[in-house]
Order: sequence, then structure tokens, then C-alpha cells
Amino acid sequence: MNPSRTLTPIAEAVRPFFAGVDLGGTNIKSALVDDRGQLLKYHTEKTHADRGPEDAAARMGEAVHRLARQVGLATTDIAAVGVGSPGPLDLTAGTIVRAGNLVGWDDFPLRDRVAAHCGLPVTFANDANAAAYGEFWVGSGRDFDSLVLLTLGTGVGGGIIIGDTNVEGAHSHGSECGHMIVDPSPSARLCPCGQRGHLEAYSSAKSLVARATEAVAAGATGSLTKAVSSGESLTPILIGREAEAGDPLATELVMETARWLGIGVVTLLHVIDPAAVMIGGAMTFGGNTAPVGRAFLARIHDEVRQRAFPTLAAKTVIGYASLGGDAGSIGAAGLARLARQHR
Amino acid sequence: MNPSRTLTPIAEAVRPFFAGVDLGGTNIKSALVDDRGQLLKYHTEKTHADRGPEDAAARMGEAVHRLARQVGLATTDIAAVGVGSPGPLDLTAGTIVRAGNLVGWDDFPLRDRVAAHCGLPVTFANDANAAAYGEFWVGSGRDFDSLVLLTLGTGVGGGIIIGDTNVEGAHSHGSECGHMIVDPSPSARLCPCGQRGHLEAYSSAKSLVARATEAVAAGATGSLTKAVSSGESLTPILIGREAEAGDPLATELVMETARWLGIGVVTLLHVIDPAAVMIGGAMTFGGNTAPVGRAFLARIHDEVRQRAFPTLAAKTVIGYASLGGDAGSIGAAGLARLARQHR
Repeated sequence: MNPSRTLTPIAEAVRPFFAGVDLGGTNIKSALVDDRGQLLKYHTEKTHADRGPEDAAARMGEAVHRLARQVGLATTDIAAVGVGSPGPLDLTAGTIVRAGNLVGWDDFPLRDRVAAHCGLPVTFANDANAAAYGEFWVGSGRDFDSLVLLTLGTGVGGGIIIGDTNVEGAHSHGSECGHMIVDPSPSARLCPCGQRGHLEAYSSAKSLVARATEAVAAGATGSLTKAVSSGESLTPILIGREAEAGDPLATELVMETARWLGIGVVTLLHVIDPAAVMIGGAMTFGGNTAPVGRAFLARIHDEVRQRAFPTLAAKTVIGYASLGGDAGSIGAAGLARLARQHR
Repeated sequence: MNPSRTLTPIAEAVRPFFAGVDLGGTNIKSALVDDRGQLLKYHTEKTHADRGPEDAAARMGEAVHRLARQVGLATTDIAAVGVGSPGPLDLTAGTIVRAGNLVGWDDFPLRDRVAAHCGLPVTFANDANAAAYGEFWVGSGRDFDSLVLLTLGTGVGGGIIIGDTNVEGAHSHGSECGHMIVDPSPSARLCPCGQRGHLEAYSSAKSLVARATEAVAAGATGSLTKAVSSGESLTPILIGREAEAGDPLATELVMETARWLGIGVVTLLHVIDPAAVMIGGAMTFGGNTAPVGRAFLARIHDEVRQRAFPTLAAKTVIGYASLGGDAGSIGAAGLARLARQHR
């Protein structure tokens, strides 16, 4: 949790309370919030995926108990818990289907095991959808009736919220915006999912590094080639830094990433027509606070202006997300609240 | 209205009642339905767009009165009215923004004028969204919790229903699935909307005829060229007929249409993950009852199998819509019912 985030004292909090737990490959983040999404307490610990899923589920349950204790509540003062997890998931069964970097976790019934450990009802969600709900509820999307969140990291995650509807899909695959087809050609780039031409194959950190590596291997000159020659690894941070320093190749690679993202955003505007599209995740080149981040966003806007219905290009807010790595845990708590309202 | 559609006697109908009016460039179709979507009475008349929008709005209001009278009800027995209209619309203002083939109707406040003429609350919707809701409520989507309807005609219309959510968009442009970008290249086909590479530029009747005309002009041999030489106009019906007779070019053109549609469907599966995708509209080559219609659908399935997440390709039902031209009026009534439930 961002240490600068303000905690609301329990005396000012509005019941009922909700806990959210965001399971990641590296960290488990948990948050205790009130009915308005105000943060009461948070906790972060290592995932220790190698200890297996039952160990993690026990610690996720314990985190909920601890958050309650720390603000002077009983666990039973918490109305419900939300758990966000990397997918693919089976939301109906409450299981992780294939857990990627959580080796050995396949088919683990995470929802019910966390529920058993904390003794509370658990709402289960894809981590990207939970993050989108967090932004929608109390973050960059709080002033809008609908939101698409694109999360740029190793992959490209997506979350779509339309009013009270979290687009989680009929088969737990809703909002997988990273897997829109942006290039249908047989020579399109390969996506880590195994198919070609998906947005993630062009706009993820992995894709940026792959394209940079290909350009250097193909004999491009400039600071990226120099960096590789002097033993540095190409990373989004290095590429962003060299773009900021004015290297043409680095700049082109970053702008190409934005161009493809813009193409994907146009399809989302025409299919969903959300009030806002927010871009989050680690690969935002410093966001609004850095020149490259601002140029990256401007390039997305350019592409949208060129390709979208003019009224949507003019009216849809496209910007950076605001909750950073805290969106998932807060949003998971929000989804637990939403599920309770709909029961 | 399909004359074979069964009418439910008023004695067996379930209150409250709803009326739906589907405004088209050629016809105004209206339907009176009960709370279960059972059809009580319907009416079709010419639009006579040249008489202007106020004349049409008056006749749309009168159609509602007449439907009530014809089944022995007072107009006040109808709880609410839904109006579906070709777009683009301003759903908040209740206006037709630009009416395409309804010349001189721009900015007409259709919702409020129909409400004034029938004296009932009116829910306003895009015609394609209304059709999608009709299929979802009582048609091909009735057994599913979510549905995408793609309507193939002169253009490609779209409607997305997720539970109680009609994806009408924050700026009245939701579910415009015909304007997904399926080909990002600068040489992509031009869409009637003025942008390149949209699904509609590849999968509409207009596109099919344009591609056939280009192939004939480029010197293709076969029955389409013979037809043109003997003075026939290329139409989807003619192309479908020649595909059925085994002409290679006609078959290729139809299958190419399906291939692009399949690419669009994959993006919809990954973004929305609906329980079902239904294909409706005039250009379905006879649908399930004709060999070309079945081959067209099979080609869509093929493309989806090659490109979608395997679990979605296996689980998502992709088929033909069932209500035909009646979906819009019934669906508009259904959206009026939905709006009333949410008030």
C-alpha cells in the first residue's frame, strides 16, 4: 500500500466494513475499508508461492483477522471479504484454473479456503477486474458511471465496470482486453497466450522489451545498443529513460506501444463506450509526472482522435489511473460490498 | 411481424403490459407484450420518412393507442413504452442526432414527442440494442445470462446485454460492434462511417457487394461476372445463391465475410465473454435452414476456434438469432419494462 495513503480513523468510518485481499505472484496485499471505500488499515506480506496455496490461503484469512484486530474490531464486524487473484479463474467454482507463476496452484479452491480461514463470505474476482473496481469506486474513475481500466505490466490486464456491473464474463474471462485482436495478419506478433495479434503482444512490458531486443539485434544504432553492449539488460525503465534522454529508437518503441494501445482503446470505445478509460500498471513511464509518460498518453489520444467516432474522441476521458498497486485490494473489498448489495 | 408468430390471448396475459415501437427507414413496427414478453398484438406501417418526424411520432403514439384498443385495454393499462430508433442517438436528451436515411430528422426529440402522443413514459434505445434485448428476453438468447447480437444488414449493428445491463454506453454509442477495428493497416477497407478497418467494412451487405464488384471488375471469371454481363445487379441474395450453386468466387466472398466476422467475435469473446453470440439481420444466407447459411456459421466457428481462448471457443454458443425483424419492437418493450424495474 502506498505509505502516503491516508487512513481513516475507525471513529469516522461508516459501517458496514469490508476487507479486500489482492493475491499477486510476489505480494499479498490486504485492505480494510468502510462502506464509502475509505481505507482503515492495510497489510502487505510476501506471497511465498512455493509454500503452496493452502499456506497462502491461511495467511490471507489471518490477514483479515489481523486488520480487524488492529482497528479494534471483531472479525464479525466485517460484512464480507473480496479476493482478487491472477487468472484464469473459474469464478463459479471459486478456483484458480491455471496460475501462471504460482506453480502448483492449479485448480486450488482459493475462494472457499480463504472463507474457511476467515469465517466470512468471500467474493472472488480476477485481479484486473478488482483493480478496475477499485479505481471506479474511489480512484481515477470515481466521478464516472462506467470505466475501462487497462493495466500495463508484464502483460496487459483489463477491467470493465458499467454501473453496478463488473464485466467478469459468462465463463470468467470478461474484460480480458489484452486479448483483443488488434492485428489479424498471420505475421502478427505472438501473444504469450499462444495466439497472434493480441493487444498484449504489442503493448505489454514484455512486448516492449522484445521489440527493443529485436531492433538492437537487427543492427539499430543509438543508446539502447550501447546499453546492451555495456552489459545492461533492456527493461521498460531503461527504454523509458533513454526515450526521455531523446534516443530516437527508444522514443519510437514507446510511441509504437502507445499507438497499438490507442487502436485497442478505439475498439473499446465503440464496443463499451465507457465514460472513461484509465491506464494503470507499472509500465506508464512515470505517468502524468514525467515527460515520457505525458507523451505516451498524448500518443494514445492522437490515435483515438484519428480512429474513433469524433464525439467519443472528444467526450471520453482517457487518463492515468490513480490508486497504483492499491487498486486491487480496495477494489476486491468493493466487489464484496457490491455482491452483498445484490444478494 | 412474422405472421406465424403466436399471439397470446389477453385472458392469458400477465400484467403489466408494455408496448415497443421499432422505427426503421422503411417500416414502423409496434408490438404489445405482457410482463413475460408474450406477444398480444402487433402492427406494421410504412415510415413515410418524407412526411417528417412529427408525423411519424404522432403515428407511433397512435399505434400504441390502437394496440391497446384492439385487445380491449385502455392505453393506461400499458405501463410504459419503448422506442428503438436508428442512431446515432442522444439517449439522455432523447433525440435522433443524425438520422442517415431519415432525411431532415436530425436532432428530433423522438422520445418526448412519442411520449406526448401516447401519454405514457417512453424508454429510448438504439434499434440494434433493442433487437439484442428482444433476443435476450424471449428469443435466441432467452436461456442465457448475457448475449451479444450482431445484426448483418446494410451495416453491421450490435447489441450487448449483460444481465440487467443494456450496454448503451456513456455517450449513447455502446455496443457499436460494427465499428471494432479488425484491420489496423492504412490500406484497410473504408467503413461507411469514414474510418478504415472496421468490422462493418468487411462483414456488411454493402461490403459483400463492394468486394464482389471489385472482383468482377478485376477480371474474375465465374457466375458473378456472367450475372453482371447479363445485366443483373450484384446483391447478397444473388451472391448467396451463386455460392449455393458452387461458384468459387461467390463462395470465397461469403466465407471471407464470415472470416472477418469471426475475428470480430473473438475480440467480443475476450472483452465481454458473453454466454452467447447470435447473428441476425437480413444477410445470413438463409441461416440454419440453408447450406450456405450453415457454411457461413461454420466458417465463423472455425475462425473462433483458431483464435479464441480454447475454453471460450468451446463454451460460448454462437448461432443465429430467432426473432428476425420482430426483435426490435419486442425488445424495445422489454427495455421499457427493464427501465421501470430499475426506477
